[in-house]
Amino acid sequence: MNLMKYSAMLELLRQNRPLVHHITNYVTVNDCANVTLCIGASPVMSHALEEVEEMVSYAGALVLNIGTLDPYQAKSMLLAGRAANKLDIPVIVDPVGTGATRYRTDFMSHMIDELQISVIKGNAGEIGMLAGADARVNGVDSGDVKGDLGNIAQVFAKKTGITMVISGPTDIVSDGNQIITVENGHPMMGRISGTGCMLTSIIASFAAVERDMAEASVASLAAFGIAGERAAAKTPGPGSFKTALFDHLSLLTPDELARNAKVRKH
Amino acid sequence: MNLMKYSAMLELLRQNRPLVHHITNYVTVNDCANVTLCIGASPVMSHALEEVEEMVSYAGALVLNIGTLDPYQAKSMLLAGRAANKLDIPVIVDPVGTGATRYRTDFMSHMIDELQISVIKGNAGEIGMLAGADARVNGVDSGDVKGDLGNIAQVFAKKTGITMVISGPTDIVSDGNQIITVENGHPMMGRISGTGCMLTSIIASFAAVERDMAEASVASLAAFGIAGERAAAKTPGPGSFKTALFDHLSLLTPDELARNAKVRKH
Amino acid sequence: MNLMKYSAMLELLRQNRPLVHHITNYVTVNDCANVTLCIGASPVMSHALEEVEEMVSYAGALVLNIGTLDPYQAKSMLLAGRAANKLDIPVIVDPVGTGATRYRTDFMSHMIDELQISVIKGNAGEIGMLAGADARVNGVDSGDVKGDLGNIAQVFAKKTGITMVISGPTDIVSDGNQIITVENGHPMMGRISGTGCMLTSIIASFAAVERDMAEASVASLAAFGIAGERAAAKTPGPGSFKTALFDHLSLLTPDELARNAKVRKH
Repeated sequence: MNLMKYSAMLELLRQNRPLVHHITNYVTVNDCANVTLCIGASPVMSHALEEVEEMVSYAGALVLNIGTLDPYQAKSMLLAGRAANKLDIPVIVDPVGTGATRYRTDFMSHMIDELQISVIKGNAGEIGMLAGADARVNGVDSGDVKGDLGNIAQVFAKKTGITMVISGPTDIVSDGNQIITVENGHPMMGRISGTGCMLTSIIASFAAVERDMAEASVASLAAFGIAGERAAAKTPGPGSFKTALFDHLSLLTPDELARNAKVRKH
Repeated sequence: MNLMKYSAMLELLRQNRPLVHHITNYVTVNDCANVTLCIGASPVMSHALEEVEEMVSYAGALVLNIGTLDPYQAKSMLLAGRAANKLDIPVIVDPVGTGATRYRTDFMSHMIDELQISVIKGNAGEIGMLAGADARVNGVDSGDVKGDLGNIAQVFAKKTGITMVISGPTDIVSDGNQIITVENGHPMMGRISGTGCMLTSIIASFAAVERDMAEASVASLAAFGIAGERAAAKTPGPGSFKTALFDHLSLLTPDELARNAKVRKH
Repeated sequence: MNLMKYSAMLELLRQNRPLVHHITNYVTVNDCANVTLCIGASPVMSHALEEVEEMVSYAGALVLNIGTLDPYQAKSMLLAGRAANKLDIPVIVDPVGTGATRYRTDFMSHMIDELQISVIKGNAGEIGMLAGADARVNGVDSGDVKGDLGNIAQVFAKKTGITMVISGPTDIVSDGNQIITVENGHPMMGRISGTGCMLTSIIASFAAVERDMAEASVASLAAFGIAGERAAAKTPGPGSFKTALFDHLSLLTPDELARNAKVRKH
């Protein structure tokens, strides 16, 4: 497989420095801003109903992350999402905690009905719940999902037209046609808060410069995973790991991305 | 005194990985999430009126932290607190800035009246104000409080049935019967934002696996204090100290907790 | 030029430890809290309409940062700002993203009309937009502004009575009478989220102990810039740079500030 396309994508991203508009949770928002800068894009956070339509019009991609959803934010997400759809700006959704509460699950269903979403990135529990699989989630942690994850992702992607990304020890991407897996990453990434949200911001950054949403997602998973591997190699605990994760994502060269990406098409 | 019970608590906490539901301020929320992971529990933040009752039902403990209180959050705290009470889930309160404004002081009184709170953790100024002592607070910093702090804590704990934790150079815990002091910690912990909030998240994590709230609080103070001592020993300033604090909390073994805890019963 | 006054200011700041009340965005709020502690002041964040007037009455300065402005926060800023004005407490404004959306631009105009603002600190795009120059901004990033920046700052400062600070490779300060430039800093400061917001918190900290707003701003730019230079000298990427930035700001002595400040009056 030719991995050089991922290096070209990262190069383009760093040249274009697209604006990524986030409507996201207040827990990991700072990490999302920094990771967006590290990969080479430019973050903006804005949720006021008065401005989200205008703000998103300047953006290369829109992140909608429901980690601390409330009714005001829900309205804001729909407003920004519709504006993004009109302008053909990719909408990247992180369904944090879907399945944990009816409120989140219902809102995700509503968003899938109302908006044209480009990518949904979740863990196995969240995506399984969305896909109607026999899934349970415990808080915002991933639960166990019966059935083959790749298959769940593919069927749901085909049905909805949304590229599905399931993060985990082996990451899974499907746009309905193909199933792609990425084997980069390190268990340490699950021991700090926010890596899921950060990944979503990175996907949005790549989606701003690459029309193939599956490929933009694969590039993101590989880039973030490689940075995680490198950060974990040199740090004793989660505090220093997180610091090093930002360093290594920022230092990652297009060439290193292509050489270290562990991508497989199925 | 047998300190092995604290090592057993930490071991149980890491085995059970309880969910800790936070309704907290947006200043230190990321630190609270990470410290909860470091000690071995699993954080979730959620404040929407539509979901807090459901979310807390999955939790082992509920944190209510009034650091950036507003009317929506106040409603949310009462709703979640009542749900926690019905399910006998411990409610751990951080009265940040109580005494600084009437709004915070009044809300704390209201919470004490309306909810069955398990633990209140504050600094001397905040707890003194709550207890009606001759206390003043300056912003969210601790003020001076006349009178013996241990006595204030014990009397107020006896009156309310709430375990009181006063953090400071010597930490004080009282459930009304006994007064326990913990001497772990380092002055550097007062030089970064959020250590007070982080401690509250750790107490909630232990409270999810230990029914004796005084013992859960003592374990937390010792664990966090030891991590602070170790982090301060190797770092030149507050930035690197904070990074190391997460590392050392995560690396702290149950055995090291028991061996290094400086606990005294009075 | 006598730079010893800056060392005296930093010494006074660390002795007095003034409270700095922030109404600010949720992206960089934790960084603002920590940087306020590092420079020697004491941060408090509070936005509830019920308490902002009381909270600001205890403060030495008020920060109004519109980075994630919404209607509730806008009300809160005006309420706190008016209370600060009555008590002659300096109001330091960060017009994040002004020019990016009409909502932010209009609110900034409204604040300038309604409040007596002591300092506005922005990048070239934001200040240019406020000053009515031929300016464009892209999201929250600085755009290009035609015309001489020092002149723009001086004319606008003279017209409004507000000290203007334009951050950039060369920082510009004008109170309408003089133009002062500061050459400290490092490009790495633009590669992490929040340095603009942090600078505003530092200016507010100095403004709480120094009545000359231009001098308070210059001291802030020099102190933060020197810390940035030192942090960048020893770190490979943005994660470790940010950690070191807090360390070096905290470790900066009054004497080092005076010796390393690169200040020029024009």
